[in-house]
Amino acid sequence: MKAATAIGIGAGVFALLFASMMEGTQPMAFFNISALIIVLGGTASATLSSVGMDTMKRIPALYKLAFGPPELDLRGRVDLIVSLAEQARREGLLALDAQLSEIDDDFTRKGLQLVVDGTDPELVREILEAEIDGMTTRHAAGATAFEKAGGFAPTMGIIGTVMGLVHVLQNLSSPSSLGPAISTAFIATLLGVGAANVIFLPVGARLRALSSAEAELRILTLEGILAVQAGDNPRVVGDKLRSFVAPAERETEDSPTDGGRAASPAADALAAEAA
Amino acid sequence: MKAATAIGIGAGVFALLFASMMEGTQPMAFFNISALIIVLGGTASATLSSVGMDTMKRIPALYKLAFGPPELDLRGRVDLIVSLAEQARREGLLALDAQLSEIDDDFTRKGLQLVVDGTDPELVREILEAEIDGMTTRHAAGATAFEKAGGFAPTMGIIGTVMGLVHVLQNLSSPSSLGPAISTAFIATLLGVGAANVIFLPVGARLRALSSAEAELRILTLEGILAVQAGDNPRVVGDKLRSFVAPAERETEDSPTDGGRAASPAADALAAEAA
Amino acid sequence: MKAATAIGIGAGVFALLFASMMEGTQPMAFFNISALIIVLGGTASATLSSVGMDTMKRIPALYKLAFGPPELDLRGRVDLIVSLAEQARREGLLALDAQLSEIDDDFTRKGLQLVVDGTDPELVREILEAEIDGMTTRHAAGATAFEKAGGFAPTMGIIGTVMGLVHVLQNLSSPSSLGPAISTAFIATLLGVGAANVIFLPVGARLRALSSAEAELRILTLEGILAVQAGDNPRVVGDKLRSFVAPAERETEDSPTDGGRAASPAADALAAEAA
Amino acid sequence: MKAATAIGIGAGVFALLFASMMEGTQPMAFFNISALIIVLGGTASATLSSVGMDTMKRIPALYKLAFGPPELDLRGRVDLIVSLAEQARREGLLALDAQLSEIDDDFTRKGLQLVVDGTDPELVREILEAEIDGMTTRHAAGATAFEKAGGFAPTMGIIGTVMGLVHVLQNLSSPSSLGPAISTAFIATLLGVGAANVIFLPVGARLRALSSAEAELRILTLEGILAVQAGDNPRVVGDKLRSFVAPAERETEDSPTDGGRAASPAADALAAEAA
Amino acid sequence: MKAATAIGIGAGVFALLFASMMEGTQPMAFFNISALIIVLGGTASATLSSVGMDTMKRIPALYKLAFGPPELDLRGRVDLIVSLAEQARREGLLALDAQLSEIDDDFTRKGLQLVVDGTDPELVREILEAEIDGMTTRHAAGATAFEKAGGFAPTMGIIGTVMGLVHVLQNLSSPSSLGPAISTAFIATLLGVGAANVIFLPVGARLRALSSAEAELRILTLEGILAVQAGDNPRVVGDKLRSFVAPAERETEDSPTDGGRAASPAADALAAEAA
Repeated sequence: MKAATAIGIGAGVFALLFASMMEGTQPMAFFNISALIIVLGGTASATLSSVGMDTMKRIPALYKLAFGPPELDLRGRVDLIVSLAEQARREGLLALDAQLSEIDDDFTRKGLQLVVDGTDPELVREILEAEIDGMTTRHAAGATAFEKAGGFAPTMGIIGTVMGLVHVLQNLSSPSSLGPAISTAFIATLLGVGAANVIFLPVGARLRALSSAEAELRILTLEGILAVQAGDNPRVVGDKLRSFVAPAERETEDSPTDGGRAASPAADALAAEAA
Repeated sequence: MKAATAIGIGAGVFALLFASMMEGTQPMAFFNISALIIVLGGTASATLSSVGMDTMKRIPALYKLAFGPPELDLRGRVDLIVSLAEQARREGLLALDAQLSEIDDDFTRKGLQLVVDGTDPELVREILEAEIDGMTTRHAAGATAFEKAGGFAPTMGIIGTVMGLVHVLQNLSSPSSLGPAISTAFIATLLGVGAANVIFLPVGARLRALSSAEAELRILTLEGILAVQAGDNPRVVGDKLRSFVAPAERETEDSPTDGGRAASPAADALAAEAA
Repeated sequence: MKAATAIGIGAGVFALLFASMMEGTQPMAFFNISALIIVLGGTASATLSSVGMDTMKRIPALYKLAFGPPELDLRGRVDLIVSLAEQARREGLLALDAQLSEIDDDFTRKGLQLVVDGTDPELVREILEAEIDGMTTRHAAGATAFEKAGGFAPTMGIIGTVMGLVHVLQNLSSPSSLGPAISTAFIATLLGVGAANVIFLPVGARLRALSSAEAELRILTLEGILAVQAGDNPRVVGDKLRSFVAPAERETEDSPTDGGRAASPAADALAAEAA
Repeated sequence: MKAATAIGIGAGVFALLFASMMEGTQPMAFFNISALIIVLGGTASATLSSVGMDTMKRIPALYKLAFGPPELDLRGRVDLIVSLAEQARREGLLALDAQLSEIDDDFTRKGLQLVVDGTDPELVREILEAEIDGMTTRHAAGATAFEKAGGFAPTMGIIGTVMGLVHVLQNLSSPSSLGPAISTAFIATLLGVGAANVIFLPVGARLRALSSAEAELRILTLEGILAVQAGDNPRVVGDKLRSFVAPAERETEDSPTDGGRAASPAADALAAEAA
Repeated sequence: MKAATAIGIGAGVFALLFASMMEGTQPMAFFNISALIIVLGGTASATLSSVGMDTMKRIPALYKLAFGPPELDLRGRVDLIVSLAEQARREGLLALDAQLSEIDDDFTRKGLQLVVDGTDPELVREILEAEIDGMTTRHAAGATAFEKAGGFAPTMGIIGTVMGLVHVLQNLSSPSSLGPAISTAFIATLLGVGAANVIFLPVGARLRALSSAEAELRILTLEGILAVQAGDNPRVVGDKLRSFVAPAERETEDSPTDGGRAASPAADALAAEAA
């Protein structure tokens, strides 16, 4: 399910508010303006200082990406490359030129263009690896912004709480208001720890996982394109690329080496785990 | 013993409840509905946001795996590969085809199938290494889910406790109920820290250890299959593969190079330690 | 925007002071002399002990660098190297000698000087890689100083607070002054945690990010200079170097392999994310 | 001194108990049954869940190892290998067969046996490196068990303390017993933090250091055995292997390249430091 | 300045005591015997258990090293090696034998001795790299001891404080002495956190930085000696080794490739940063 992160954040906020309502607290009690300024303003400022404006500007796009990540179809990519390998074997590498415009994925198309242009295989590998490294670095910068925010938010919350306590302790003349005042001071901690654990850290972890998955798809693609260029046997290309795909996502009918597995209970347990 | 994790979790829960009963607390006092919603709901939500739905769906299977891991028989795998090496030397690689259906382990069978198919050794290594890498990545995603949950649970517990304290402090009018109310607020911390340390973190660590052990078995298998394909001397194959096995699990009668060790007290101390 | 770190620190300090004023605290209440001595003096002393005087002396220059980092123009560097590659192809490597005085960047000029001098390519790579390693090490020492300060400041704040509490508790004779005295003790924690999270840790993170970006620019330059020396086709040099540049910063008209991408919605989503 | 860890633990326990007696506390006050059940039972359960039964069973042997580690004689190993190199040069590799039974160390004997058997040098390296890797992995599992216990013990102590506070706060009817009851609740924290820092973490660190030292001795041995097999000049073998030994442990009379060092004060400072 | 660590520790202790005197606390109040026994005795015991007696014995020498580190003259080392390269080119490698006794540095002398003895270049590299690895390992053991102490000291402080609170709470009969008693309990935390942050952690960080710097000097030396042995052009040797030296420490007149840099303001900003 693609919307896991949005669902998780919504469910987390709901669980916390629902439980606090069960105890009798009004949810609005947590919307304290000065606490929000300290936690959100302080976290945004510290994150901006840490990662610079370029990465900050990407944050809305990164939220969108985390909430609705593109589908990564490893199985489909393997099939595509195997079919390209068959065509290249039959009609030569230049025949792939006609397919280029039908390929959606930038990376695959760039790689095949290099192959069609007759680029040296070693250079194709270098160019595509530099693309993957660059993508990983850009993705890591985005995930880091959320991880930094997840580190700053709780400390900003603690700063807000200590500020509130300092204020309360300097004005002990009215003991009757002591309880509510301390209570308000703690709201900054609540908001800081909550924002970090319900939003920032999960989004950061999700972006990092999406980046790994996309890098793996690109590595599979890179290996496939180089095999196409080398003129490898399409069946061997398929065998090799399918090693990148989780066993449960492979179609057994295409995979003769996996033929006998249904007979093996131990293997089933493992496959279930891997699924 | 395979059920170590289940036993450990049961013993941990029992130790904590038993000790609290010794002090006079009713175990039921810890089952506070709103605290459970905050800790379990919040942790599940944040973990879902972090790792996505695919990994969340695997969590029941991962518990099952941690509680009843498959037996990994390094010694038996070495014996199997040595016997295959002997047969391949006598009758040729194609003779292994008949053995394939008798081999339980997917990975071993896939490797041997590649060898029987006459795949290039370098390609066999690449395919099998990609399998191992893929398995390690999938396993790491599962272990990470538990480690993330182990990180979120205590902070969710603290959120629950601070929420409770905020509520208590806003209603100081009834000082007589102050104690029990604060007490209830702390139950969220108890549940969060307890769930993380008794369940989530141990299961995560266990899954990571099981993954390492399985990866090592597969590396042993990979080296063995390549040695079989290269037609190495079965005795040398055995010597090499036995290096992967802990000394205490090797059978000395098969291992001429370990012949004199019983005579050496220093070696015994070490072997005892390694066992 | 270059001034992101200065803006972030200013905004962070403003947010915290503004929120505390909303609650009714005088900002001057936070400027406690003994707390400042403990937090700033203690942090500076511990950082000096940790990193030595040479790195301490560079701290003002490092602040200046973090507040106004030099523009790193990857696209311009690629264009420069491609034009050098064209000239070298037409007129030979020695013709580059005339361009040397017009190149602003030390590193590029040193690399080209080595090429013009006829240095062996392997040695050019070794010398330039040693330059990059050296730069990275020096930069890391600077960033580490801020990270260490960010680690020491909160503990110095805690030391100040505990010192204050020790003093308060030894003089319980005047209960009426208890509140303000405890309040003052907490100011050290506020200053320590605030200085770490608003200034030291963000500046350290920023310096580390700037260092990575500069190292990447230099690696691009190194690969480009070696390609110029090898006499590679300028179009291929451009293709290779552009792989280091984020897709959104590349000019599509120069990049035939990216020609069809505007037609692909999926690719657009990714490019937007990468921008 | 071999017993450093046992002495350190004894001295640590003594220092803590002695200081608390100086303050007037009876040491027996810390032996609280329910706190012990929570801390020791909880830590043992969580560690068992994490590392499995096989590693748990080795824990007594690992304590014994940490308290009385075997002497690792690098200098003696170098001398042994140099004398073997001399004999092999004079009488051939087969002459080493007679020495095998006199060699105490399993690893050295296994390596020499392989050499005497005429195993290919590359294979000797692979087998011995697999032995070293296997040993390091097994040792790491042991050290990890103690490090995990050192992580679980303080949180189990906190669980015990919060459990105690929950109990106290639910029974505020008897304010006179409040102090002692809270006091008892804190004993769980004391035991947890104390056990982790006085026993578990130091033993874990010690085991890791012993493992590194033994791995280094084995790498020295591996390099030496391969040099013996290659028929290297015994003087050169000695020079090379002595590089693994700390300067202060080398005997200068055997080491002509270190001849003039006593004349150099700067060198002395360094050697003293290294000693 | 060499004495940075000693100055930093002195200034840190002074800042903390001065600030506490400003608040009216007698510095002697912090010298609590039982707190000192717990913090220093406990930390020393746990560190001894962790690192063993050999490393503990080196601690006074390591303090001396951190307080007065040897001057590392990279520029002078480059000049020395360039002059040796010139001599070796004119008069042959054997002519270096006469210079050996004049070289202060053990490592340089050992390397040149190997070259003069006609050792194979690959073996020279192996021997010198083993020396560097060994030095790094020994240095790391020393730095680790201080880092471990920096980790144990605050927890020992917390143990001392909790012990004190346990004692106070068990004897609530005299409420008037409650404040001073709790105050005394906190002194253990103060001493533990203070010792860790003012002394142990800074000294550990300093030792690690000194070790890195010395390792870099030795790598420069190793590369230089191998270039001398290979008979490289002295000018090229100088160019290569100067890449290891920070730009600001190089003398521009000796470095033709840096000729035009004073004309470049951008380069100046960078050089200032690097200085």
